[in-house]
Amino acid sequence: MATDKPRRPRAETPKGFRDYFGAEVTTRRDMLAAIAEVYHRYGFDPLETSAVETVESLGKFLPDVDRPNEGVFAWQDEDADWLALRYDLTAPLARVAAQHRNDLPSPYRRYAFGPVWRNEKPGPGRFRQFYQCDADTVGSSSMAADAEICAMLSDALEAVGIERGDYLIKINNRKVLNGVMEVAGLSGDDREAERGIVLRAIDKLDRLGLDGVRALLGAGRKDDSGDFTKGAGLADSQIETIISFMEAKRETGTATTACLRDLVATSETGSAGVQELETISELLAAQGYGPDRIIIDPSVVRGLGYYTGPVYEAELTFEIPDDKGRKRQFGSVAGGGRYDDLVKRFTGQSVPATGVSIGVDRLLAALQAKGRLTATAQGPVVVTVMDRDRMADYMAMVGELRTAGIRAECYLGNPKNFGNQLKYADKRGSPIAIIHGGTEAENGTVILKDLILGARIAQGATLEEWKNRPAQIEVPRADLVAQVRQMLGQ
Amino acid sequence: MATDKPRRPRAETPKGFRDYFGAEVTTRRDMLAAIAEVYHRYGFDPLETSAVETVESLGKFLPDVDRPNEGVFAWQDEDADWLALRYDLTAPLARVAAQHRNDLPSPYRRYAFGPVWRNEKPGPGRFRQFYQCDADTVGSSSMAADAEICAMLSDALEAVGIERGDYLIKINNRKVLNGVMEVAGLSGDDREAERGIVLRAIDKLDRLGLDGVRALLGAGRKDDSGDFTKGAGLADSQIETIISFMEAKRETGTATTACLRDLVATSETGSAGVQELETISELLAAQGYGPDRIIIDPSVVRGLGYYTGPVYEAELTFEIPDDKGRKRQFGSVAGGGRYDDLVKRFTGQSVPATGVSIGVDRLLAALQAKGRLTATAQGPVVVTVMDRDRMADYMAMVGELRTAGIRAECYLGNPKNFGNQLKYADKRGSPIAIIHGGTEAENGTVILKDLILGARIAQGATLEEWKNRPAQIEVPRADLVAQVRQMLGQ
Repeated sequence: MATDKPRRPRAETPKGFRDYFGAEVTTRRDMLAAIAEVYHRYGFDPLETSAVETVESLGKFLPDVDRPNEGVFAWQDEDADWLALRYDLTAPLARVAAQHRNDLPSPYRRYAFGPVWRNEKPGPGRFRQFYQCDADTVGSSSMAADAEICAMLSDALEAVGIERGDYLIKINNRKVLNGVMEVAGLSGDDREAERGIVLRAIDKLDRLGLDGVRALLGAGRKDDSGDFTKGAGLADSQIETIISFMEAKRETGTATTACLRDLVATSETGSAGVQELETISELLAAQGYGPDRIIIDPSVVRGLGYYTGPVYEAELTFEIPDDKGRKRQFGSVAGGGRYDDLVKRFTGQSVPATGVSIGVDRLLAALQAKGRLTATAQGPVVVTVMDRDRMADYMAMVGELRTAGIRAECYLGNPKNFGNQLKYADKRGSPIAIIHGGTEAENGTVILKDLILGARIAQGATLEEWKNRPAQIEVPRADLVAQVRQMLGQ
Repeated sequence: MATDKPRRPRAETPKGFRDYFGAEVTTRRDMLAAIAEVYHRYGFDPLETSAVETVESLGKFLPDVDRPNEGVFAWQDEDADWLALRYDLTAPLARVAAQHRNDLPSPYRRYAFGPVWRNEKPGPGRFRQFYQCDADTVGSSSMAADAEICAMLSDALEAVGIERGDYLIKINNRKVLNGVMEVAGLSGDDREAERGIVLRAIDKLDRLGLDGVRALLGAGRKDDSGDFTKGAGLADSQIETIISFMEAKRETGTATTACLRDLVATSETGSAGVQELETISELLAAQGYGPDRIIIDPSVVRGLGYYTGPVYEAELTFEIPDDKGRKRQFGSVAGGGRYDDLVKRFTGQSVPATGVSIGVDRLLAALQAKGRLTATAQGPVVVTVMDRDRMADYMAMVGELRTAGIRAECYLGNPKNFGNQLKYADKRGSPIAIIHGGTEAENGTVILKDLILGARIAQGATLEEWKNRPAQIEVPRADLVAQVRQMLGQ
């Protein structure tokens, strides 16, 4: 443990961790509540697992094959068990589905949100603790489960304030991709490395464009800095098969699946995947989820190794300026797919499952960019302290305001310097300061100082709007609550 | 890290951890939301710190002096820093108050809730991860801050459903206790061990009664099993001083503080403590918080070493049967006090602070015992699958119900065995099963099977109330939503 040092400890979060204050906490809380409400309506039940799992139970299911268990925070328990902080919400779900398989309904629809931890190098905007929000259906092999998740994701995005037209949910299928690999002559255990390069290349379409991907599928690609990335070394015909797949998207879902069907006609797996996409399309159409919300898009790959069927991704289609002021599509905020083998490692029995994970911080950033997070923390009415001996009177005022449902507080610092009290009220974003000195006590009045002006201007109102407001009014003590209400516009 | 073993991993939470399902999650979430609403109205801002802190920052501020740092889950980071999971919400607050001292308003009122972790031997009902819900004011030495926390705690308890009369908030002051020690001749650094025994003895009043405490203050006490606990070895006159203090509670707060004033008249510290209690009483009285909610009670000690002034505790006064069926007072659900030295270890500057922590699981158990947690999870309407080929029709029904705000889902398991579908609906606590087979499809109807009966009987309704309800009705397909609404009583 820590050695005893005479020096004072540093007041710092560990590297890569941070604190969340005020509105940062409540906006996330409100957004998650809105999502939970949608998930609830869809019949999903909440599940909260502990932050700590055994390392053996987390297994190797890190979402990126490049990163083994070293990516988790782990320690050895007293009785020699290795424990770790969960790195996602899927591994704990697989453990729960196995542990409670006799008690849970089957299929089991569950949602979960909470922090996860990654023992990775932190960077700008990359933290080692962050929130995830997941919904999964365990125990259903029906494509209706996948379709449902996509429809629910669409509803959830709209529920938090992403308008229709500002997002698109794209669906693909790993089986179709496997079929394409087969057709391109890339199946078989000995071609795994090449398939990996192909997957990663397809995943980079957004960033590199078709020519870049083509280069990576062939001999390799030299980037702007001159660095060379070795390619998969495929023959031209193989490359064209892959590229045709990536370009298979047509005007309608039906046309897209028809194109895909031709492409993988000789592959049984591929054809089964196309059939799955068709089924999902039909189910979504029956519920009214058209291509303005959800589309088939063969360019969606998702790097994760454990997907076995449909994969899906929610992209925000509006543009925001990047670091250099260039307009960029906001990009992905959620993704998921079918993973049929996750519970099997515990029980030996295959359990079909499909689910989605929303990147909570990404979605919050998107709402911020769209100006949907206007709800800054509403500051309290501040009752100032003019006379230390009349503290009980001030507390009584605060009590009355609170009882009336008005956020209020008494200044509890050293009251000597009145300017400090107003500075405090300002820092708190306070709409009104209450002043009650000796004169007011004699008159039986209180002064209400209007600070809304300052607070609102900070929120973007114009000075014009406020210049006719009186800076302060003196009212009978008995009218305190009513007058505060009126000034607040309640 | 974990060694690769060929055997399958166990699907188990680590020892002392557990999962929370459905209503267990939502009842806690709702309770915390109700508390947060009160805290917000009092001007407290939310703060969410990360689960992980440096061990150096957590320091030695474990809430029980008997337990050093071994009580935390800790591990060494790659760059040799020791990190640990927070064991409470106070130590992180002290770190935040020091780290952000130039940006935070002063005084800083904050609330926080979330899990904390203790590396302790788990036992029945004792988990190594549990929730705390704290509110603290940092940077105010005013007794108004302590009075406010007590008033807020009272409001919070009532907001979650603990009725007035079912709880009592008891206030004491460590300075008065120190004064009593002084009067009893137990001050001075060399008497620390004896003072520790005295504190622990007073804290056991509830369990041992006055005679038991008296024995522990004197030579010692033999318990029912014959085990002997060595006492503080005080002289009779010293013992009587301590006992008078413990018995100082009178009919009114004024009478109690008068009694205490006499008792510690010769101690400056003690007299200052009595003055603080009087100030708090006056402030609370001015806000209408009388002795039916908050009282001065010298028997409240709270074992924590770091308190420096007022201490307070919320007790639930109603009785519940214990393991052996005997009636017992429910006891403490929250506690706190003033701790003026917690930020100092980081900055060297003393920062006054006071705050309370609610035992979330204890309070939930209390609400459960009072029958206030009636809101069991509302199950979804289940649309059964009679014909696999008409899945799109079933999903469309579910879609209509959800759009109407009704919790609904389609059965997504293997539909072959209809009995399994009804068993599933039962397990889900479903109020209505929708049936739409070939005949209904021809007729353009759906059958609504009323499962509310079963669900409600499980919740305590009588059979009588429901026996006149028809078991199922057949309605036009177009009336699905309206008829479901009517059956749900919406």
